[in-house]
Amino acid sequence: MTRQELFEQIQRKRSYLCIGLDTDIKKIPPHLLQLEDPIFEFNRQIIEATSDLCVAYKPNIAFYEAHGPKGWVSLERTLSVIPKDIFTIADAKRGDIGNTSELYARAFFDQLSFDSLTVAPYMGIDSVTPFLQFPNKWVILLALTSNPGHDDFQLLSVVSEGKSYFMFEKVIQNSQAWGSADNMMYVIGATRHDYIERVRELAPDHFLLVPGVGAQGGNLEEVSRYGLNKQGGLLVNSARQIIYTSQGEDFAEKARAAALAVQQEMERYLNEYLPR
Amino acid sequence: MTRQELFEQIQRKRSYLCIGLDTDIKKIPPHLLQLEDPIFEFNRQIIEATSDLCVAYKPNIAFYEAHGPKGWVSLERTLSVIPKDIFTIADAKRGDIGNTSELYARAFFDQLSFDSLTVAPYMGIDSVTPFLQFPNKWVILLALTSNPGHDDFQLLSVVSEGKSYFMFEKVIQNSQAWGSADNMMYVIGATRHDYIERVRELAPDHFLLVPGVGAQGGNLEEVSRYGLNKQGGLLVNSARQIIYTSQGEDFAEKARAAALAVQQEMERYLNEYLPR
Repeated sequence: MTRQELFEQIQRKRSYLCIGLDTDIKKIPPHLLQLEDPIFEFNRQIIEATSDLCVAYKPNIAFYEAHGPKGWVSLERTLSVIPKDIFTIADAKRGDIGNTSELYARAFFDQLSFDSLTVAPYMGIDSVTPFLQFPNKWVILLALTSNPGHDDFQLLSVVSEGKSYFMFEKVIQNSQAWGSADNMMYVIGATRHDYIERVRELAPDHFLLVPGVGAQGGNLEEVSRYGLNKQGGLLVNSARQIIYTSQGEDFAEKARAAALAVQQEMERYLNEYLPR
Repeated sequence: MTRQELFEQIQRKRSYLCIGLDTDIKKIPPHLLQLEDPIFEFNRQIIEATSDLCVAYKPNIAFYEAHGPKGWVSLERTLSVIPKDIFTIADAKRGDIGNTSELYARAFFDQLSFDSLTVAPYMGIDSVTPFLQFPNKWVILLALTSNPGHDDFQLLSVVSEGKSYFMFEKVIQNSQAWGSADNMMYVIGATRHDYIERVRELAPDHFLLVPGVGAQGGNLEEVSRYGLNKQGGLLVNSARQIIYTSQGEDFAEKARAAALAVQQEMERYLNEYLPR
């Protein structure tokens, strides 16, 4: 998917919501457990109920991998029922030496047909560039994550050419030589708006994938005010607060209601904060 | 497996060789391709031919994941034929927020019964500690990798309490508060001996997993001189130079000869450099 297509979808749906498919067999409604592939069935109904309200789905790969071969089948089946115009994110946080990253790229882009993959930056350029060779596919590089441990390394003070930066700023700066705003996004945890402002100085055009609005405590209005750019430039993820709203047979209906509330809030922010 | 058991194996076999099972369907002998599970059959024969010469096997998970559900079956079958006293490393370079890392831990430690997993440090403490809750299982944290891109972030100059460090040194320093030499190792690329000396100052007791001796250009004698500690403390990985020595029906025999040559070299270094 191109950046333009993603923006058109945002405008059409008045939404930049990404729904996280962190589908946990222990948390899905019990009536699904008697089915042959409960995880797929849960995802299928969630997707059917919400696909007009969100622009992206993000399966968290660990939740599938935890089930071994069976989990990969559930993942493949899930992808097959996501409408083709919706952006798909493999939240896998991969990153390895060149020839290995290439294999991951083929697995997620070719075999599973994901549009994008989250990638850890620590190993540097040759762990990332293999993912950038696929036309209209995207790397979403971890820059500033929303988990408590983000200050261990991402906020370390790095000195470069006499100036001082946060580590995550160097990740954004250095990686811009590897790809462009047309094939690279950044994961930016929504914990502080001054960080989002700083990211927008360094990367005005890039899309940002923002986790942590909702369960992890970010503030959607703040993220939108400081994060939206002329082409949208934001994908805001919500998982648990949408997909686990009900444990009953109405779970998909309730998920739709939760997604609708977020979409309506986003519509307001698009009207208010999208630069013209 | 405990540190003591690993050391006893090193002493018994006079070897600290880890064989990387980077098993690529395009590189294995063509006569195996007619079999139902060529990757498993290749691994099975390599393991049978080399298990008395090495102390660890390290499947590179990307090579299995690239085949989807079938690849996970090959991986499970491979693990089932590795003798129980040999240390197993899932080279997966995972690392995610707490609840997700926990799922990866269960997948690799419980379901697949690996002894250890390589983990990327960028997300900090809560991405690593879930892996440390499993008795006698190990985290092998990426510190200094051997790929060209290692200087992009790992060698950045970080200022902390008025002193200057390489990023990889901060990874080693900070992570020592999370685990101990009994459940954590470090990946240290063998590109420069002064880095290994520096690592030994920071982490005298920890095992180091050293990739890049052989195909990636490290020097085994130098690594051994500066890296061996009183409990061995080294696992040196070799993959391509052992497993792809021959494309014929004698591939396992030739792999054994290559592994034997490395083991004999290691025996000399154990005699010479193991501190008494």
